[in-house]
Amino acid sequence: MKKDAEMETNGVSRRQVLIGTGALAAGTAAAHFTGLLKSAVAKDGKNEKWPWPYEKLDPQKTAEIAYNEWYRVFCGAAVINSVFSQLAEKIGEPYSSFPSDAFVFLEGGQVGWGTICGSPAGANIVANCIIGPRISGADEGHHIAADNMQFYSETALPTFKPASPKITTEIKTTVSDSPLCHISVGKWMKATGYALGSPERKDRCARVAASSAYHLVEMLNAWKDGTYEAKSTFSSAKENGITGQYNCDECHGDNVPEAPQMPKA
Amino acid sequence: MKKDAEMETNGVSRRQVLIGTGALAAGTAAAHFTGLLKSAVAKDGKNEKWPWPYEKLDPQKTAEIAYNEWYRVFCGAAVINSVFSQLAEKIGEPYSSFPSDAFVFLEGGQVGWGTICGSPAGANIVANCIIGPRISGADEGHHIAADNMQFYSETALPTFKPASPKITTEIKTTVSDSPLCHISVGKWMKATGYALGSPERKDRCARVAASSAYHLVEMLNAWKDGTYEAKSTFSSAKENGITGQYNCDECHGDNVPEAPQMPKA
Repeated sequence: MKKDAEMETNGVSRRQVLIGTGALAAGTAAAHFTGLLKSAVAKDGKNEKWPWPYEKLDPQKTAEIAYNEWYRVFCGAAVINSVFSQLAEKIGEPYSSFPSDAFVFLEGGQVGWGTICGSPAGANIVANCIIGPRISGADEGHHIAADNMQFYSETALPTFKPASPKITTEIKTTVSDSPLCHISVGKWMKATGYALGSPERKDRCARVAASSAYHLVEMLNAWKDGTYEAKSTFSSAKENGITGQYNCDECHGDNVPEAPQMPKA
Repeated sequence: MKKDAEMETNGVSRRQVLIGTGALAAGTAAAHFTGLLKSAVAKDGKNEKWPWPYEKLDPQKTAEIAYNEWYRVFCGAAVINSVFSQLAEKIGEPYSSFPSDAFVFLEGGQVGWGTICGSPAGANIVANCIIGPRISGADEGHHIAADNMQFYSETALPTFKPASPKITTEIKTTVSDSPLCHISVGKWMKATGYALGSPERKDRCARVAASSAYHLVEMLNAWKDGTYEAKSTFSSAKENGITGQYNCDECHGDNVPEAPQMPKA
């Protein structure tokens, strides 16, 4: 499996630096981080043996499931269910034990607080449950999480069009430049004039969940094939000395709008 | 169990309005939201029968576990493990099937991107796995999630002092006014001058995880006793027509600092 270039050259992946909290990778890679390695023993619960068994999925089919599931469980749980429901059927455990529906709360950036959108948040959960955390010795789950957020931020979304859309209005695409629900939904509402409660905004978010699930499965399939390569290459911790996005000026600059009046109906 | 006041008076909880995506509550509460109720059938997986069995936990003991677990799995997984490891021991399933260690990626606001801090994100997972999603007919998990974020935002953190701290330096407290890692860590770093990679910053975050776990268990115990009352009462969707925090001017205003140079060592 292709390794991060930086890991190959200096033995420390950029994300171990990025998170800035010391590194717990398997082996000796992180030996110069102090005091943490000796406790880096996974507790090895019943479903904490990684990777979980994985069979390649059809991105198109997965996205269709996510789109329809959005109308039942909203963005985060829709993305989780779109992958885990298929794997539960194909493989069984540990997928059938995972309480996907509990993750409805990821909606609206966690119960409406506008933090990370449930689509990348759900996709991050899927990748890290399947591949495992970086402390288990594999870093692709960590990298796919960064790529979920980078894709979400940089892509004109939604990319996915459902076979049988719930509404026939054309859904305009927008680039969020952020993984946050508030920013992503806000920019789309500003560009289209549709309200948060409108059927168009809901269908846009259902399609964004589907687009995220599609891209996630493409990456998981590549990981299964041994061809996954991480695309997100920045390190806020290394470059700026703090956790954060790649685009500081988006918030620290003149681009932040006056709190605009949003349509409420 | 005490219900949300608004729910008692008009049959729709404020959070069903807040999330702005239509409501899926059990019964007839949300009947005036269109087109979603009929598909609101949980898929009823093996571990999707709610609530999960719960026994009251000692907040102090839970916080100690979270503090120490931070040094193994960081904020999000530390909060999850602090509760689920005890319940796995006391009760067994479904806690012993939950892959808590997979949630290491919640660190640094999800692999260092600075979005929601892993402490409230992990606490939100715990509450919603135990109590269930609002589509299962109980809304306390949803409310406790909002209260996790409100507590995190409004409290001078950390509140918890471990019995055997890893460092002896006094850890200053700060109020984040936000559930986001970037803001919370940034304000603390600005107030103290410590770098992201410093032992003090790490111990601060370990104590914040412990403080979050302490407060979460207080709420879960109250829920078990039938005395839990939601404290978070704002609705960004209702008041502002968009998902978001309670304090718009924190970002839409003159308070956003120039992107400051952070110490990197």
